[in-house]
Amino acid sequence: MKQLLYGVAYYDEYMPYERLEKDIDMMKEAGINVVRIAESTWSTHEPQNGVFDFSSVDRVLNAMHSAGIRVIVGTPTYAIPTWMVKEHPDVLAITPKGPGKYGARQIMDITNPTYLFYAERIIRKLIGHVKDHPAVIGYQTDNETKHYDTAGPNVQVLFVKYMKEKFKALDNINNLFGLDYWSNRINSWEDFPSVVGTINGSLGSEFARFQRQLVTEFLSWQVSIVNEYKRQDQFVMQNFDFEWRGYSYGIQPRVDHFEAAKAFDVTGVDIYHPSQDDLTGIEISFGGDVARSTKGTNYLVVETEAQAFTNWVPYPGQLRLQAFSHLASGANMVAYWHWHSIHNSFETYWKGLLSHDFEPNPVYNEAKTIGKDFERLSPHLVNLKKNNKVAILVSNESLTALDWFKFNYSSSKNYNDIVRMMYDELYKMNIGCDFVNPSSDHFEDYEMIIVPALYTAPDRLLERLNEFVRNGGHVVYTFKSGFTDEHVKVRTTHQPGIINEACGIYYNMFVEPKNVTLRDDPFQVGPKNNTVETWMELLTPTTAEVLAYYDHPHWGKYAAITENQYGKGQATYIGCIPSPAVIQKILEHAIKKANLWGVDQELAFPLIVKSGINQEGKHVHYYFNYSDVPASLRYLHKDGVELLTDKTVTMAQTLDVEPWGVLIIEEM
Amino acid sequence: MKQLLYGVAYYDEYMPYERLEKDIDMMKEAGINVVRIAESTWSTHEPQNGVFDFSSVDRVLNAMHSAGIRVIVGTPTYAIPTWMVKEHPDVLAITPKGPGKYGARQIMDITNPTYLFYAERIIRKLIGHVKDHPAVIGYQTDNETKHYDTAGPNVQVLFVKYMKEKFKALDNINNLFGLDYWSNRINSWEDFPSVVGTINGSLGSEFARFQRQLVTEFLSWQVSIVNEYKRQDQFVMQNFDFEWRGYSYGIQPRVDHFEAAKAFDVTGVDIYHPSQDDLTGIEISFGGDVARSTKGTNYLVVETEAQAFTNWVPYPGQLRLQAFSHLASGANMVAYWHWHSIHNSFETYWKGLLSHDFEPNPVYNEAKTIGKDFERLSPHLVNLKKNNKVAILVSNESLTALDWFKFNYSSSKNYNDIVRMMYDELYKMNIGCDFVNPSSDHFEDYEMIIVPALYTAPDRLLERLNEFVRNGGHVVYTFKSGFTDEHVKVRTTHQPGIINEACGIYYNMFVEPKNVTLRDDPFQVGPKNNTVETWMELLTPTTAEVLAYYDHPHWGKYAAITENQYGKGQATYIGCIPSPAVIQKILEHAIKKANLWGVDQELAFPLIVKSGINQEGKHVHYYFNYSDVPASLRYLHKDGVELLTDKTVTMAQTLDVEPWGVLIIEEM
Amino acid sequence: MKQLLYGVAYYDEYMPYERLEKDIDMMKEAGINVVRIAESTWSTHEPQNGVFDFSSVDRVLNAMHSAGIRVIVGTPTYAIPTWMVKEHPDVLAITPKGPGKYGARQIMDITNPTYLFYAERIIRKLIGHVKDHPAVIGYQTDNETKHYDTAGPNVQVLFVKYMKEKFKALDNINNLFGLDYWSNRINSWEDFPSVVGTINGSLGSEFARFQRQLVTEFLSWQVSIVNEYKRQDQFVMQNFDFEWRGYSYGIQPRVDHFEAAKAFDVTGVDIYHPSQDDLTGIEISFGGDVARSTKGTNYLVVETEAQAFTNWVPYPGQLRLQAFSHLASGANMVAYWHWHSIHNSFETYWKGLLSHDFEPNPVYNEAKTIGKDFERLSPHLVNLKKNNKVAILVSNESLTALDWFKFNYSSSKNYNDIVRMMYDELYKMNIGCDFVNPSSDHFEDYEMIIVPALYTAPDRLLERLNEFVRNGGHVVYTFKSGFTDEHVKVRTTHQPGIINEACGIYYNMFVEPKNVTLRDDPFQVGPKNNTVETWMELLTPTTAEVLAYYDHPHWGKYAAITENQYGKGQATYIGCIPSPAVIQKILEHAIKKANLWGVDQELAFPLIVKSGINQEGKHVHYYFNYSDVPASLRYLHKDGVELLTDKTVTMAQTLDVEPWGVLIIEEM
Repeated sequence: MKQLLYGVAYYDEYMPYERLEKDIDMMKEAGINVVRIAESTWSTHEPQNGVFDFSSVDRVLNAMHSAGIRVIVGTPTYAIPTWMVKEHPDVLAITPKGPGKYGARQIMDITNPTYLFYAERIIRKLIGHVKDHPAVIGYQTDNETKHYDTAGPNVQVLFVKYMKEKFKALDNINNLFGLDYWSNRINSWEDFPSVVGTINGSLGSEFARFQRQLVTEFLSWQVSIVNEYKRQDQFVMQNFDFEWRGYSYGIQPRVDHFEAAKAFDVTGVDIYHPSQDDLTGIEISFGGDVARSTKGTNYLVVETEAQAFTNWVPYPGQLRLQAFSHLASGANMVAYWHWHSIHNSFETYWKGLLSHDFEPNPVYNEAKTIGKDFERLSPHLVNLKKNNKVAILVSNESLTALDWFKFNYSSSKNYNDIVRMMYDELYKMNIGCDFVNPSSDHFEDYEMIIVPALYTAPDRLLERLNEFVRNGGHVVYTFKSGFTDEHVKVRTTHQPGIINEACGIYYNMFVEPKNVTLRDDPFQVGPKNNTVETWMELLTPTTAEVLAYYDHPHWGKYAAITENQYGKGQATYIGCIPSPAVIQKILEHAIKKANLWGVDQELAFPLIVKSGINQEGKHVHYYFNYSDVPASLRYLHKDGVELLTDKTVTMAQTLDVEPWGVLIIEEM
Repeated sequence: MKQLLYGVAYYDEYMPYERLEKDIDMMKEAGINVVRIAESTWSTHEPQNGVFDFSSVDRVLNAMHSAGIRVIVGTPTYAIPTWMVKEHPDVLAITPKGPGKYGARQIMDITNPTYLFYAERIIRKLIGHVKDHPAVIGYQTDNETKHYDTAGPNVQVLFVKYMKEKFKALDNINNLFGLDYWSNRINSWEDFPSVVGTINGSLGSEFARFQRQLVTEFLSWQVSIVNEYKRQDQFVMQNFDFEWRGYSYGIQPRVDHFEAAKAFDVTGVDIYHPSQDDLTGIEISFGGDVARSTKGTNYLVVETEAQAFTNWVPYPGQLRLQAFSHLASGANMVAYWHWHSIHNSFETYWKGLLSHDFEPNPVYNEAKTIGKDFERLSPHLVNLKKNNKVAILVSNESLTALDWFKFNYSSSKNYNDIVRMMYDELYKMNIGCDFVNPSSDHFEDYEMIIVPALYTAPDRLLERLNEFVRNGGHVVYTFKSGFTDEHVKVRTTHQPGIINEACGIYYNMFVEPKNVTLRDDPFQVGPKNNTVETWMELLTPTTAEVLAYYDHPHWGKYAAITENQYGKGQATYIGCIPSPAVIQKILEHAIKKANLWGVDQELAFPLIVKSGINQEGKHVHYYFNYSDVPASLRYLHKDGVELLTDKTVTMAQTLDVEPWGVLIIEEM
Repeated sequence: MKQLLYGVAYYDEYMPYERLEKDIDMMKEAGINVVRIAESTWSTHEPQNGVFDFSSVDRVLNAMHSAGIRVIVGTPTYAIPTWMVKEHPDVLAITPKGPGKYGARQIMDITNPTYLFYAERIIRKLIGHVKDHPAVIGYQTDNETKHYDTAGPNVQVLFVKYMKEKFKALDNINNLFGLDYWSNRINSWEDFPSVVGTINGSLGSEFARFQRQLVTEFLSWQVSIVNEYKRQDQFVMQNFDFEWRGYSYGIQPRVDHFEAAKAFDVTGVDIYHPSQDDLTGIEISFGGDVARSTKGTNYLVVETEAQAFTNWVPYPGQLRLQAFSHLASGANMVAYWHWHSIHNSFETYWKGLLSHDFEPNPVYNEAKTIGKDFERLSPHLVNLKKNNKVAILVSNESLTALDWFKFNYSSSKNYNDIVRMMYDELYKMNIGCDFVNPSSDHFEDYEMIIVPALYTAPDRLLERLNEFVRNGGHVVYTFKSGFTDEHVKVRTTHQPGIINEACGIYYNMFVEPKNVTLRDDPFQVGPKNNTVETWMELLTPTTAEVLAYYDHPHWGKYAAITENQYGKGQATYIGCIPSPAVIQKILEHAIKKANLWGVDQELAFPLIVKSGINQEGKHVHYYFNYSDVPASLRYLHKDGVELLTDKTVTMAQTLDVEPWGVLIIEEM
């Protein structure tokens, strides 16, 4: 990118009356320099099978171009028209819940050839139509694409072919997946049952992997079509989203972002998060770190909240704080979903920058300041490079497998809770981090790898992690890591499988903690925080040093948390779910041992620091006050300039930060 | 009616042994003067397709007639026979949950021609058979009729025809309903999808309106058939019921009672309510006020509880209290569901006046006193006319639309909660009220109209409300009123739409309150009651006076509750959900401003006053003690006679009322 | 049995690598003398339709035999192979939730002839194959067999035939079941609807009885086949299970254990229970008492937990405590599900004696002590005869009927809660008891019968209970007993029906208690325990003495708990749900009146005593300390020998019992 993009999704089609010129005037006033269009309205662009009408696209493109606003055009394939479903009801995905019903978006079978035929046609028609328009800077393929649980008979056939290709012989599958159990053994390919009803977690996890692969294939197929048309100066991206808990919470279960991102020029994401008193910036940071890590470079925030939904109108200052927080994680674009609040249908209360009355309002007015700052500071802030020494290893496969094998009967915690348990404490300590996935070949770029609940992993991955430690790296594991192989078969060795070598421990029993604490409060967190919940492994050290024992009449002889010197490095193992306060202490301890504790660690949440190097090679430090009270901080980097105020800042100077305030200091 | 009716539902078919003469003896002893029969037992009256057997009807009619007990005969169409479903499985309604299963009542598709054919035949056979019997005073068509969520393919076809008739061109629908959104646009009538899966709240609300119209049409069709047979001295009524929350809670979502009532001679309702310590009389009053308002005159309580269900046996005195409470709201009949407790099947624990042993019991014994009092006092109490100055505007359309657009993600509150929030406080202050619906043409009969959450309304309705204020009326609005037009499209103007003129306020932002109160406790209700929950609009007054501001660091500049002089009248606007105590204060304030505060407002719940004018033109005042402790009160109307004791009462006299006690004073 | 059996389920098929010899070595070391095989792996034994492969069975049989370990062979019919479902999808049960899906076990229609054909063939092939093997001591038919809610069209046809056979004429059904209600009347056999949608609790209960009969027939059919092959020295048993609440809680709703057990040589059960701090021994005792009562003799614990599931690893000592507790209730076998923890699929976390690493662990090590003790003490402990004076009358029919007619709208309590409410207090008081069912002809073997919630019962059963009292017996009834006849039709007489004669009370009203206690705390249990919840009948004594009145402003005149002399005996009636403390006091009172209070009642939970007579005719007394703290007790039986330590014990001697400890004293 040459410039920071500040954008909105714009739906001319949804307007209750002619607004285009007025909207553009208001956009200009707010510094909006890019809009995203077209990705949701196939039925408008192709009102009948084979009848195309891009007039609404053309008029927006032309008007935007006249106003100097760039346009990203989306392929409209994630929401199918009524005519298609009436003519071909079988385009709807059959899911474990049964046949689909028309109405919502994202309801089609992404393997259905009829759907694919029409999708290809509208993509070619639309992209072919707009590709030469000077306003168009790039394309989005589809939107928040997933596999929509497609699992009908045709998908089962594809899965059997996938299995045959991957495993060759049925007996491999029978053995690796343990299908003898409960008579699930398959002795002839013709007998392969639909896996919709399976109770075999290995088979179910493999099917989930296959479904994620369908997404990767579908997206790369779309990209290959768009690539036939795109100009050299145009990019293709996708709008990825995250595990949804009413907001963007964790790793996306239904897409392998690392794999799917490969086809794209740049990664786009949407990030939604709590607001008002619940605004912490964690989701902005988490989503940004994932997005940046997928391609190891800057990314686009294709959608984030303006007035937000479930009535989360931001407090004064929060919209600014959010916008600069995205930049601080490496975003080159911050775009709102959406420009105006929609007057009908499902998302009437997911409010845009403008309310339903289209008039200026406090949120829009705040956006105007952001737009101006983005424009003014773009050369300093665009293309920020991050150089993190810590990475978190995340695994879609472990996520799925832990959905099959939950921690216990009563807990609703899943894999992402464990990822976030670790991530959140890093964030609060101002430790910047990247994400790596199991197929990463650059572990060595890092000095520390955090490995939450790596439940399923091939031997080679665990051995590579052992090597990483042996060669001087630091790994912090949580419980459940190494437990099963890549087919979700429990290892028959001592646990934790393979990594017990680096960790210097073993266990073969685990229980659900009741009235269990850590003996003698080893991390000095006080009785309220000295807790153990949900899951505990009964660890016995071999070579490890014990950081914490359980306090319990019968399990007190077992270790809860250990660390171990192994080769030139060190491995920490957390065998249970302690409180966030304890996690913070463990991480602090490990980070200090790894010599990664720096000046930014003098500050902690709600004071957040993010740093990077801009395209002029200068260090830029963002300071955020994620609280409703004023704060002050000592600036501990080299002298610089606070860019928003253009004031000089000297090292060790004390700076004030307003509630929900932002400072951006570029070193001189 | 010439006389108060005191009745029971009577099911000779359900008797475990021959009881008829004995039952009639016991009825006579209890003053029962009417029974309702036949509405549930089609399979008894038509044991096989085309084979009719009305012998059980005949024997009951004859026996009742001999005993001087009148009979209401119901058409048995709400519970279909086994033979019909075996011969024509397609009579079962297909709902969004799938095809129906035989077993329960109210499972058929009320548009199915096979069902309608058989229904018409049994109606003609049964009514033709009984019409000349001297015991028969009237008819009930069907029972608690609703549309049963019928939504199968044939219903979808009907809906498309309805839409074509109503909107003529598809583009009207596309525009008014915002169908471009998520590619829901319909560009050819042939493409019109089933709306079962729709995510468009405008379309979903229109379908709900269409379904309610099916009920109106079905009932008026039944009435037209019965009318061919009924004698001049006979009436036709329906047994309407309410939103069910284990008892009769609010406006019925699936029937437009105002529209459906038009076809009938008299409105009947069933009213069930909590009992014992939870008996408040609110549901009796609410259901009665709705029923009376549908036709603006007296109504029948076709069903209410005797020994009740979920084990709500009334305390001593409560059955009497309930019976006279019905009369005080304008009921001319109080009938129990049901005479005897049923020995098998679903409603075994919905106990009748008699327990399963058919012996006298405390509840039956109390009924005997009611029957005697009804008979003795009938000339004084029958045909009570009410003359209320306050009305509540209720809207089935707003109810449905707010089911589509809930207040927030966590609240289970719906439209009826808001209606009841307002109604309950009026009740507790002894403000009698009527209900009006959006198509009412007699707003001017009232001095105050309460408008809870009128979320969807055509411009004309809102303009009429503005006129009402301009001409001197008082309106109390709650939040969400005026927000969308009649197609559930959000207005593009300042909110609240159109009524902002009379209210003198506007807003375009709203949030979910967290830790929000009203600044400085403006209604002096104490910290426990000075609360705001679920929803808050950020109001800015233009001409309005602010009654309460929010207390919050960021929203404190916005108003929560306002009032505004507009023309000769006044409009109050409540922009949030405060506590009941605050609602009471707001209403008290408004009522005093409207000069409607009278002597009955000296008393408050649990002392309830209801008044009316009897057929001799005399004012009658009911006093109810809805509590388990004795009470006393000052009688502040003209001298009169307490009818139950036949004692003279003078103005300003202090009167004692027993726990759960009743006084009825007729002015001299 | 000649010897105590100590066993495991063994799945050679599930092994991730060759383990047989090593496993047998470890089994021998642990004293395992029996394994159960083959019941889950049809697809391994018949990999394709008609292709049989018993090599895995043979090798296990041979290896076990060489090691002197006995084998029980299970028919593998409860988990069907993939090929069967692919070839014949209709073998899957259609349930009220719809058609079945392949994957889990126990998903087939046990009436489907295709399934039965294949089941018979594999049974004949397998049993014919192994019958002469010297290792085989017995057979298990199927596993945890139930009817799996099979309710498809073919099952409905069978049900109609069953109804025709049982009731002859439709009008009997119409009358007995009250089908006139809501037009459910059936006037032609052709009209008989599927009962899946029925709302008639009588019809629904009859269908449940029919479904239980399907299980009885299916099992006895399997037994008849196996009996054709079995040797004289071999037995046939089934593995019954209980109402499942995450553990074995109560009477099995879907199987009539008393009826189904008739076909078998010996009753087997599985018993799972909470562990760690929640280990009470109640489920071991309950399940054992039921199992022993089905055939009035010793039984086998075919499955119980080793390392348990949901992470319930036992505390040190608990595995021993559990094993001897089984023996103390009359078990001749204690077998674990399962030997090794499984590495794939659904039950990966239902851990076996061995963890996934197959290495010795604390639980396995504790098993070794059990195995040794079992072997050494077998002559003293095997074939323990119990001679209880108290029985609990349980009724599958009442269980089902109370599922149809719940106590109230909010309570989740069901019949088994009432059974356990009574059982648990007996257990805690060390009152040994048997179970009898309604068809029992040996009430007279007992001095006291406890009758929890006998909601549905034929007249004759109630009359027999009256006779039992009249002849000197003691009965303790709870509420709801006698309420309906065998067709779940409420009796038309005073309640409790028929038994009111022996109880000397009547009622015809009942309510849900709110703020109700027992007047004057008659059992001196303190305010926390002097409670009434969920249900209360308003009892009026005729001849009974009142043990407790309700304390309530309106219900205070009614009795809550009564006792009545009737003939030579006495009947206690509990008309409500009081606290466990009150139940304990009522039972203590009744037991003392019946002269059943003995020296074992000096001890109470957590000190549990169980007694019996061994095959040498000597009294054996087990003492268990179900707590985590040491205890001591006075031994009050005749002098004897503590078998585990081989120390002499004299009457009145004080003995110490360790936490979770066991003493076994054989009188001299």
